Order: sequence, then structure tokens, then C-alpha cells
Amino acid sequence: MSLIVQKYGGSSVSDAQAVKRVAKRIAEARRAGNDLVVVVSAMGDTTDELLDLAAQVTPLPPQRELDILLTAGERISMALLAMAINNLGVKAKSFTGQQAGVITDAVHGRAHIVDVVPHRIRETIEKGQVAIVAGFQGVTAETNDVTTLGRGGSDTTAVALAAGLGADVCEIYTDVDGVFTADPRIVPTARKLERVTYEEMLELAASGAKVLALRSVEYARRYKVPIHVRSSFSTRPGTLVIEEEAMEQPIISGVAHDRSQAKITVVGVPDVPGKAAQIFQVVATAGANIDMIVQNVSAAKTGLTDISFTLPASDGTTATTALRGVQGEIGFESLQYDDTIGKLSLIGAGMKSHPGVSARLFGALSAAGINIEMISTSEIRISVVTRADSLDDAVRAVHTAFELDVESGEAVVYGGTGR
Amino acid sequence: MSLIVQKYGGSSVSDAQAVKRVAKRIAEARRAGNDLVVVVSAMGDTTDELLDLAAQVTPLPPQRELDILLTAGERISMALLAMAINNLGVKAKSFTGQQAGVITDAVHGRAHIVDVVPHRIRETIEKGQVAIVAGFQGVTAETNDVTTLGRGGSDTTAVALAAGLGADVCEIYTDVDGVFTADPRIVPTARKLERVTYEEMLELAASGAKVLALRSVEYARRYKVPIHVRSSFSTRPGTLVIEEEAMEQPIISGVAHDRSQAKITVVGVPDVPGKAAQIFQVVATAGANIDMIVQNVSAAKTGLTDISFTLPASDGTTATTALRGVQGEIGFESLQYDDTIGKLSLIGAGMKSHPGVSARLFGALSAAGINIEMISTSEIRISVVTRADSLDDAVRAVHTAFELDVESGEAVVYGGTGR
Repeated sequence: MSLIVQKYGGSSVSDAQAVKRVAKRIAEARRAGNDLVVVVSAMGDTTDELLDLAAQVTPLPPQRELDILLTAGERISMALLAMAINNLGVKAKSFTGQQAGVITDAVHGRAHIVDVVPHRIRETIEKGQVAIVAGFQGVTAETNDVTTLGRGGSDTTAVALAAGLGADVCEIYTDVDGVFTADPRIVPTARKLERVTYEEMLELAASGAKVLALRSVEYARRYKVPIHVRSSFSTRPGTLVIEEEAMEQPIISGVAHDRSQAKITVVGVPDVPGKAAQIFQVVATAGANIDMIVQNVSAAKTGLTDISFTLPASDGTTATTALRGVQGEIGFESLQYDDTIGKLSLIGAGMKSHPGVSARLFGALSAAGINIEMISTSEIRISVVTRADSLDDAVRAVHTAFELDVESGEAVVYGGTGR
Repeated sequence: MSLIVQKYGGSSVSDAQAVKRVAKRIAEARRAGNDLVVVVSAMGDTTDELLDLAAQVTPLPPQRELDILLTAGERISMALLAMAINNLGVKAKSFTGQQAGVITDAVHGRAHIVDVVPHRIRETIEKGQVAIVAGFQGVTAETNDVTTLGRGGSDTTAVALAAGLGADVCEIYTDVDGVFTADPRIVPTARKLERVTYEEMLELAASGAKVLALRSVEYARRYKVPIHVRSSFSTRPGTLVIEEEAMEQPIISGVAHDRSQAKITVVGVPDVPGKAAQIFQVVATAGANIDMIVQNVSAAKTGLTDISFTLPASDGTTATTALRGVQGEIGFESLQYDDTIGKLSLIGAGMKSHPGVSARLFGALSAAGINIEMISTSEIRISVVTRADSLDDAVRAVHTAFELDVESGEAVVYGGTGR
């Protein structure tokens, strides 16, 4: 008998029929003798509909009120799911983030879980009942205010509960079969990975693979929670995300890609110490997350340098506005903004001990006629920036160059979407 | 500077535009210097939509889960209303029933408020902010489970908060101008009452006037909370519901009517002691509320009697099913069910000291050719059952007979709808 935490995303509970289908799956898992805690997201488009209602009322809703509004979504799905399970003769009770003991800091809209005190959940499973828990939400310890965890929050709720309860596994149900060596929509020969390490999964999530939220993987790694990413539409095993020790190290697990980045180039920065620090300070203060950075000596003029960096395109306006505000102070000449870039990342835990991976990567891209604009690396990842319209070709070329297409036994990456 | 509790029903916050309109009204009241606590119901048809979702999932939802589901409705409306008020430059914060300290018993679906501990509400108004509170909901002290208060629950939330906070007045906003001498849709000459006593309002609410929920009036009477029933579509004063001492006593305040009752006749009950008690015990156990009772010696047979009683038509199936189950045991011959009855009630605190009111009532009905089927009375009320299709005529005839049509200075009753 195992204690399993399952998480179903919005696409798995898009309407009443889908809720009933998920309920059947949960009832079967319970009847098979498992203790079950189920984390659920808001149904289908509920969150967007609620955001739309808020927009009709005010252009700038207070974050505290927005959190209260959005949590109505999970409240609806969790109650319906509990009803549907009871209807199948299996006892189930639903709990809000607060009732489940999900304690967060007070940063509304993107709160972090600071503690999990799941007394009621434990009581419920000890009675042989299924506990349904609202994903994506928590409560502040001090003021008892409702918070939301931001994008991917339900994954994090599930992993945090699995850690707090000492669950045997945290199953993340999604609309794809697991983690793939590349996005199957781009690389039809991509293969599902049986296993991947936390480290690799972190790099994959950070590099654009959307199948698991980055924060949930960080949480799982810290508390050593095994994650099983699988499809809610089939009973096939998916991908296990586990500790490195237990696994042989494939050189390359997979190829991730990211189309959501943009590049800002600060042209003609005086080449004196401290200017770069000043620029990145301004951007960070504006709340934008810088990813890759390249600094070149300006070709045209002496004593000047160009600094390029990438960031999420959604932070583009904020960052350029902030930089324009200090143009005189820093003394740069102009700004260039480019949101037609694509980022490809090659990830593999075995990369550490295998030289020659970058040479093979650059060779493959060169042979495919694809220009590399920026490069960044970590111990187990190499990322390159290309033109957005050559990204798909780049992913296919690299996937093939590292023999990920074939049934070779090692390999990882990209899944579909999920929250 | 007054402390005012306002309550807005679902029809007052039916969509984003309506929410903005109500927000404007609240912001104005706050700017006029009042401390404000605002109780809000779910938007328009939200509750029905949620019930419909539940019905798609299971025919018999557990009440605990149904309560969680339904409270999502107020969660949405309260957050939107708080946002809209903030957008007008007035600070407002929303609170769930739990956060507002509305403690109830654990009877899901129709919980009773057992305590109100509004620390956070008090804090909020002391900071000069408007506190928005979800109506219709509370939380159990023992298990921290969410409950709903049943029909008219938001009125009760408002009155209970007004009592707990020692508010100067509880304003119940609705879609009619106040309490009328009769339903203006039936009696076009009906007049709005300036004042009515708690006692009269209780009888009115119990007799079918829907403008205020019965339980909220009981609560207001117990804690002496002045209620002001008024329209959210105008700034005209409505009707004050207050203590008797402060008022001169009109003989008749108004005429209420009720179309939602049905009559069950238990035919051929053995005329021995204890049979009636047995019948009403069975009906009560089934959860049906009996209103009026008439027992007649059976015309056709000796040693047998017929017992008729009225109850909400919505309890009809439950009650007849329960009675059929004990037909052999009790030994009655048959059951008759009639849901084409109407009930008219004449209400007035002055009735106590004025004989001749019933004679005048029966005379008026007789002159209008309307047959009386059952009669029941309290100190300040006379109710009669008629055929449903003569109810409107009956209301008009009685309204005229007691000179309520004219601008005479005294009179009360029926408003429109409200939850």
C-alpha cells in the first residue's frame, strides 16, 4: 500500500465529463489499495475567465483581491471532483490550501510555500478517504490571507504536500505521455524518457520545457520527492524524475527550446568599470529576469562597448522603459530590442565528464546553416540563441546529431504544456 | 459618523457593470464619512450555475462539498467589488465568512450562526477602509469547515455582523423600494411603509413576503438591530424595521400572500388519540415544515376523521412518501395532495387590541365570492387558504377593505424578491 499524491491540471478537468473521468481514475487507484491525496487546478479556462471579469472592473486590481478571486477556480473544481468521487462510492473530501495547511509568504500572486502542516489531510487518509486539495493556493501564517503561488503553482502544491506527507511518489498528470527528448510537435522522432534526474529536469524546465513547473522541480529536489510525469488520458507509465545516484548518466537527455525570450542590446556603453553592473541593476530593479549576457567591444567606435542580454519577452517593455530612464546617467548611445530570437538548449548530466559536446553541437548547427548569436552554458547544459525562424530546424538537427532519434536507451526532454 | 452595514443581493451585482455601480454607491457613502461594512451575495445566476455543474457530476452531492462549491460564488463577487471600490480611490478589502469571524454550527446547507467574532472587520474599518464580507457563508468552530446559511443567508450575515459590530443600522439593498402594504405587482395601489415592527416583519416574512429573509428578522429582533430595507437603484429612503416601542401601532400593516404552499389531506384516520401526533411526527422526521392544520370529522364514515395540513410544495413529495410508508401502521384510508392553493395573510400589530378584524376579513372575502378553505391566526396575523386562482382577487379585496389603498398614514407589507 502506497501513499500517492496525484496532481491533475486544468486540461484534465476541463468540464463535468472530464471531472467524472478523472474521478473514475482516482476511485480505481483508491480501490487498488493506495492512500490518495489529489491536487487539482481550476477547470479549463476558469482562471482566464476570472481575470477577464477583474479586467472589466478595474485596469489594476489589488493583488490581494486578485488572489481571492482566482482561488474561486480551484474551489469549484475541488468540490466537483470530491462529489464525483463520492458518487462512485469512494469517500472523498475537499480542502482549500488553508485547510490543507499550505502556509506561504505574503507575496500575493507569486507566493512561496514556507511550510506545510497537513494535519487534516493526514486525518482524512487515515480514515481511508481520498483528500482533494486545491492547487495553486495557500494562506499566510500571520494574517490568514489567501495567496496564490503563480504559474505552475499546482505542481508545487502537489510536490510540497508529497514532501510534507512523506508520500512514495508525486504523480503529475498532464496531457502528454511524459518528458520527451524534444517537443514531439517539432521533432516527430522524439522519444519519451523513462527517467531523468532533478538536475536535468531543472535545466529542461528553465530552458523552455513546459511539462513541469521549475519551482516544483526545485522543491522536489530539495525534499527528494520522486515525481512521475504521466498522461491523464492513458495508463502507460510516463517519466520518472528522480535522484542522480539511482541512475546511469546519459550524456545527453534531450533538447529543449524556448520561443518566449527577447534580446536587448545596449549600444555604445562607455567602456569603464561599473557600467555593466549599473545596467543589470536597473533591469533587475524593474523586476525583469536576465538570462544570457554577451559583451562585445564595439566595432565602430573605440572606448565604447555593446552589451546584449536576453530576458522573457513579457518583461521587455518594463526593462527598456527602465533603461531609457537612465540613458543620460549611464551614457549609452541607443537601445535595440529584438523579440524574434529562439533559444535551443542541450541538456545531459553526463555532459560534465564528456568533452566534445559543444564542438558536436556547433558542428551540427553549422552544417544545417544556422547562425549562433549567443551562447551560455552550465555544468549540464549548453544553450544557444538563433533566429526564431530557424529554431525548429535547429532542434531537429541537434536531436539527430546526438542520436536521440533512434531507440538507443538514453535521452530526455520536452513535453507539451501544463500549469 | 455612523457605522453602517450594507447588504447587496445578487440582482444588485449581476455583472461587472452592476458591481461598478454598487462600488460607486459604497465609495460615496464612505466619502460622506461613514464606517462601512458591506455584505455581498453571489453575482446574478452564479449560484444556479454552480448547482447545475454539481448536478452534471452527481445526482446527490454531499452537502459539505456543495457548500464549498457554492461559496465560490461570493468569493468572486466580493473580490470584484473590493477591486472596483479600490479603483475609485477608496481602500477596500474583502473577507470570507471565516475571515470575518462568522462561526456556525455544522449543519451544511442551512447552518445557523452561533457566534460572530469580527476582529479583522473591526481592524479594517478602524484603518478607514471598507470591509467587504462574503454573505451566505460561515465556518464551523471545531473543524474549520465551510458552511452555507441557506436561503436568505446573506441578509442574516449582514444582520449578524451589524449586531456583532454594534452598527447603527443594517441597510438591506434590494430591487424594490422597501416593504409594501401588498405586492405592487398584484395591488397597484399598494403603498410603501415607512416603518414596520420586527414582529410584523416576522409575520410578513413567514407569510410569503420575500423582501427580507425570516431568519435575518429573527436575528435583528433578538439583537435589536435596526434594518433599513431600500432600493439599490435609487437614493430614496425605504422601510425601517424597528422595535415596537418606538412606533404607533397601525391596526393593519399589510397583506402578504404565498403561492408556494401545498395541502395534504390524510383521509379516513381512525379517530383515536395519538393518530394525529403520529402523522405529524412522520412528516416532521421527513424534514417537512407543517404550516396550517385542520382536523374534521369525516362526513362519510363514523369513527374516522380527515386531517389536512399545509406545507411548502417543495416538501410535498418527501412528506407523502413518508406517510405512504406508514399507511398500514397508522391505518388511514388514502392521501390527497393539492398544490393549487394560495395563502393570504393579514398582518398588524394593532390587531391584538382591535376585535372585529376577522369579521371584516371574512366579510370582504365573502363579498368577493372567495371561498375560505383553512384558517390560522397568531396575535398579530390572520391567514386563510383559498384556491390559488382566486388569490390575487382576494389580496386586492382585502387590501381595499382595510383601506390600505388610500394615503392614510398606516400600513405595511409585501416587497418583491430578494435572497
